[in-house]
Amino acid sequence: MIAVDRESPETLQKQIRRQIAIGIVNRLYALNRPLPSIRQLSRELGVSVTTVSLAYDWLRLDGFVEVRKGAGFFVNPAVLPAAGEALDPELTGGVDAPEEELDYTAFFRGRSFNLPRVVKPADCLARYRYPFVCGVIDPSLFPIDHWRECVRDSMNRFELENWATDYSSVDDEMLVEQIIQRVLAKRGIVARPDQVLVTVGGQQARHLALRLLVSAGETLGVEDPGYRDVVNMARIEGIAVERLPIDGAGLMLSEDIDRCRCLFVTPSHQFPTTVTMPPERKLALLERTHCNRQFVIEDDYEADISFNRTPPAALKSLDGWGNVVYTGSLSQSLLPGLRIGYLVAHSEFIREARALRHHFVRHPAVNNQKSVALFMQRGYFDRFVAGITAVYQERCATMHRALERHFPGASAPPEYGGGSIWLRLPEGADAGVLAERVEAEGVYFETGGFTFSDERRNRNHIRLGYSAIDQSLIAEGIDKIAAALADAGAA
Amino acid sequence: MIAVDRESPETLQKQIRRQIAIGIVNRLYALNRPLPSIRQLSRELGVSVTTVSLAYDWLRLDGFVEVRKGAGFFVNPAVLPAAGEALDPELTGGVDAPEEELDYTAFFRGRSFNLPRVVKPADCLARYRYPFVCGVIDPSLFPIDHWRECVRDSMNRFELENWATDYSSVDDEMLVEQIIQRVLAKRGIVARPDQVLVTVGGQQARHLALRLLVSAGETLGVEDPGYRDVVNMARIEGIAVERLPIDGAGLMLSEDIDRCRCLFVTPSHQFPTTVTMPPERKLALLERTHCNRQFVIEDDYEADISFNRTPPAALKSLDGWGNVVYTGSLSQSLLPGLRIGYLVAHSEFIREARALRHHFVRHPAVNNQKSVALFMQRGYFDRFVAGITAVYQERCATMHRALERHFPGASAPPEYGGGSIWLRLPEGADAGVLAERVEAEGVYFETGGFTFSDERRNRNHIRLGYSAIDQSLIAEGIDKIAAALADAGAA
Repeated sequence: MIAVDRESPETLQKQIRRQIAIGIVNRLYALNRPLPSIRQLSRELGVSVTTVSLAYDWLRLDGFVEVRKGAGFFVNPAVLPAAGEALDPELTGGVDAPEEELDYTAFFRGRSFNLPRVVKPADCLARYRYPFVCGVIDPSLFPIDHWRECVRDSMNRFELENWATDYSSVDDEMLVEQIIQRVLAKRGIVARPDQVLVTVGGQQARHLALRLLVSAGETLGVEDPGYRDVVNMARIEGIAVERLPIDGAGLMLSEDIDRCRCLFVTPSHQFPTTVTMPPERKLALLERTHCNRQFVIEDDYEADISFNRTPPAALKSLDGWGNVVYTGSLSQSLLPGLRIGYLVAHSEFIREARALRHHFVRHPAVNNQKSVALFMQRGYFDRFVAGITAVYQERCATMHRALERHFPGASAPPEYGGGSIWLRLPEGADAGVLAERVEAEGVYFETGGFTFSDERRNRNHIRLGYSAIDQSLIAEGIDKIAAALADAGAA
Repeated sequence: MIAVDRESPETLQKQIRRQIAIGIVNRLYALNRPLPSIRQLSRELGVSVTTVSLAYDWLRLDGFVEVRKGAGFFVNPAVLPAAGEALDPELTGGVDAPEEELDYTAFFRGRSFNLPRVVKPADCLARYRYPFVCGVIDPSLFPIDHWRECVRDSMNRFELENWATDYSSVDDEMLVEQIIQRVLAKRGIVARPDQVLVTVGGQQARHLALRLLVSAGETLGVEDPGYRDVVNMARIEGIAVERLPIDGAGLMLSEDIDRCRCLFVTPSHQFPTTVTMPPERKLALLERTHCNRQFVIEDDYEADISFNRTPPAALKSLDGWGNVVYTGSLSQSLLPGLRIGYLVAHSEFIREARALRHHFVRHPAVNNQKSVALFMQRGYFDRFVAGITAVYQERCATMHRALERHFPGASAPPEYGGGSIWLRLPEGADAGVLAERVEAEGVYFETGGFTFSDERRNRNHIRLGYSAIDQSLIAEGIDKIAAALADAGAA
């Protein structure tokens, strides 16, 4: 019933301990019979007596087993007290014990929220030699010592006492200040602390903005191609979606936009094409939405990672009327796992967003707010961002050269910056088939078809990230994609 | 323009640095004039030249200022590039610069999510000598060294690489296993990993459950008195609420419950009264909801902190049909700031909840999932919980004795455990007025009126937490409450 894996990074002692504990919890051992003895397990598993003995010591300390003198180890029934009570036939006899089980599959039919979305493969970096994955930071670039220093300094007793503060009503003061100084200022946005809300990543910023600005039955405009998760989110919230065409300068100011209550746009760095909207069109967009009395949600993803010394201003920085709600996150410029994003808008709006956040999740993790604040205040964030930006710029150039060799004119290097290139494969190519084909060769990329309203006619698009792949492997990986595509064409 | 506070825990150097940076970002300094010199600032603020000089060194490293030989420090325009562009009159001239500003107050009128809720005072523990606050853990009880060890061990490069995993689709495997073994097993619940979802605290678990089980226009049953945040949440989601009466054994099985699509209940430890539903009623409740084809959301808050060696089984452990969705969190038994909660239900339900979580926040912070998993695996969690449970039990007894002296029969010590006592003051007493009255004496408690559907007739209830207050101060604090009440009566 117990097996050990000598290749595992987990010690043998821990493996044994864990498996016995799980067995106990799952009632695989009888209460009135001894558990396998130390000697027996040691022999069966080919593991030293000391190792098994240590495992049992831990199990005893943890309350899973008890020792009966001369009889060996037994399950400690106290570890499962409630279940014991539950199984009392006197009581369970009262229930009309149903044969049937509630059919959740039927319940969710037609109302499922399990919509198509990007699922990054588990252990992506370990599994693929050419991980053209998006939104994942190369761990070798991360200043882990600086990060540890900040985490350590945020964990003293004094700070712990501060954790008693109600973080539903206030965000970490230093973090808000740092976001204002080091992130928003560079986007041309001058914000006060009461105009900023810290969120559980950029996704929550987008969700709160959508819920506050658009009611069920109203229409949200989304770029086509655009961010699929926002289309899904609208569907989940009962909001209609109007897809809006883009050109090489981002969202086109067509009549389609006039029908929407609110627009979701990525003006500085369009998702997924990476094109940048020129300032003139930004101003025209603001004027038009002002005339229409519409709201705009600006998603400024990857804003910190700009290849220009003077990146184009955010739409929000030009917003005189106040109808733009700005969302962003530190997921691309720090670590996505920390889940730190932000909303910037009118203070009235922020007050409502805070109330909504309270009822959905209360607040983002306090310790991460504190550690990130220190990381920014000490200048580590700026240095890290400058470092990865330089690296990405080089990788981006390498990738674009490799792409031009195989697919001339089919991609444009992102003018703004960021971590990915958008590629249009020849007509008729199917990115999904291609992805499966190159997987065996260790290549991973994101297919782009589902960012379009008409997925079927746009299967020939892919999104190639360069944030996680080693510079020296980029050309090789692109060669493999091109070769697989040529093979498919020949077949 | 700059001021220093010698009482602040922040160093003078940091204070100066921060204020200059904010001034720069807010364009308080002209670009073409030197910033105040080191000598000038040193004189004006009465601070050493070295301190100011260090502050400027940091500002230069951070890119806020640049040095012009012989002329002093100047604002580095690169720190505000986008705003500079935005202010170009050539461009802004294009906008029909609106005099008016969008009126968000009017927009949110009648649709505000800013509903009544508990707001714990900031720096609660520092500010009050008698903090009868709920849900806040006494920092002196927290094993900070064990916690630091786990945080450190979860931050090596190997783990960082694991952060590349898509945590939207999987939770931390070890954390799920530990929750199953160390938390759920003790509640009599035998769960597989695919029946568990990690959430951003218990609040997200409740929100996801509500969204998945109840549609807008349907009815949710909530105990009366009960958890106000869930009533608010239902209102936010367009769900009707039916308040259901309770007695000394929790939710009463009245006909009211038959009208609901779903019930939200706290059977093992009723919120806020702390009464425990006996197993017979739990079984009857399951039978009735099964007959009615209703769902039940069980909130098992503070479940780990049980004063009984064999606490009563969770409702979920008796659930044969599968209509109970179980929610809980580590907020009361570890730290609320980490935001780790969980949902336990049918695997189909968990799949949907995961998809919904993805679209709302993606996932809870990865680093916290890892640190908590280690903290549990190493047995620190069990030891910590055992420790605080013993302390709380003692504090609870002390508090109850003190209450009996002043308000005989007006409170019952919680049978289950947890961190608070519910107190009914004499008829006519107003807990809100009382709270204001005792604040000056350093006493804080939660008023209970708004947990009732009829708040006006129930202003005489309060909730007294004992998790954060020192044992030796409990009786004194209760004396102060009683004295203030007597004063009010005499006045």
